[in-house]
Amino acid sequence: MSSPDTKRTGRRPGATDTREQIAAAARSLFAEVGYERASFRRIAAAAGVDPALVVHFYGSKEDLFREVMATPQEYAVGLDRLADGPRETIGRRLAELLVGGLELPDPRTIVLGRIRAAASHPEAAALVRETITRDLHRLAAAVSDDQPEKRAVFVGTQFVGLAVARYIVRVEPLASMNVSDVIDVVAPTFQHYLTEPLTPPAP
Amino acid sequence: MSSPDTKRTGRRPGATDTREQIAAAARSLFAEVGYERASFRRIAAAAGVDPALVVHFYGSKEDLFREVMATPQEYAVGLDRLADGPRETIGRRLAELLVGGLELPDPRTIVLGRIRAAASHPEAAALVRETITRDLHRLAAAVSDDQPEKRAVFVGTQFVGLAVARYIVRVEPLASMNVSDVIDVVAPTFQHYLTEPLTPPAP
Repeated sequence: MSSPDTKRTGRRPGATDTREQIAAAARSLFAEVGYERASFRRIAAAAGVDPALVVHFYGSKEDLFREVMATPQEYAVGLDRLADGPRETIGRRLAELLVGGLELPDPRTIVLGRIRAAASHPEAAALVRETITRDLHRLAAAVSDDQPEKRAVFVGTQFVGLAVARYIVRVEPLASMNVSDVIDVVAPTFQHYLTEPLTPPAP
Repeated sequence: MSSPDTKRTGRRPGATDTREQIAAAARSLFAEVGYERASFRRIAAAAGVDPALVVHFYGSKEDLFREVMATPQEYAVGLDRLADGPRETIGRRLAELLVGGLELPDPRTIVLGRIRAAASHPEAAALVRETITRDLHRLAAAVSDDQPEKRAVFVGTQFVGLAVARYIVRVEPLASMNVSDVIDVVAPTFQHYLTEPLTPPAP
């Protein structure tokens, strides 16, 4: 198995390259065919390595999924930084981060892969649950003392529904909208979920 | 094959019973295992009939899916009636209809079946696109002249995300919330999407 990268980088392909090659292949397959059908054999074939290497690096499929579908570090950091800005624009800034992020190939692959996997496989659903909760809950808790868990989850519902409709089901006119127009529409929703009362005022 | 219904209803099992039996089995299987894995053979086995009968009644799997996963008539009618009420409570009344509907086994099976199928199968995604667009677009157009297609789709995104998070991924605290509390949280979102400006006021 030759690596085209050796020439470019001038170093021999090492364990890190192979590991990342497997991760990229796994990420794409989870997103395209779902958790169940992304077998070690298929992932290995897509990465151009022996299936035994996938097992060697990642152990179980659950561990592999958990690692390659984790929220990218820059997003986790970006989410945490949002809380430092003004509270009255938190909805818009969160929409820019989340909706804007979906325009980038890697984060989009991860988000859609998580959703497809969760829709078809209870084990993957548990992993999705963990990450969604953890990522958004820190932000919600930094913004509001009132029921931050609920706030985080409702932001998550709007985000997941948007990703499904725009990139999986491809509903028009949403699928063709500019990202800035999508941000305009959902920013007030995120603002509502993060900062406004969750129950209507008594009549 | 004996039908336990003959005794109860006092009539012989006819084509209508068999057809409905197949529809119910197909609906459950689409929701549980997705579009692709719900084969005619499996559907026939679950309905206790010969696979040839499924073909006889429904022709193609696409037609079967389209028919058994259609919006129940009472919902289509309910949606149309919403537009007759006061515009300032349309979000809440829509939330009551949609979120309340998900608590009932049949509508829930249909909604989750559509989502699972759309997540795994492009053909099913097209069918979901059609129905979502048609059902909600009539309502949005009755409520607002300004970009009703966009409004309908954004209502759809929040509804789909809610169904995924509450019933498929089962994220807490959402999964255990009372339906009336869920309605309280999403009603302002539906109101925003249906009646408020979709772009922020110029600064």
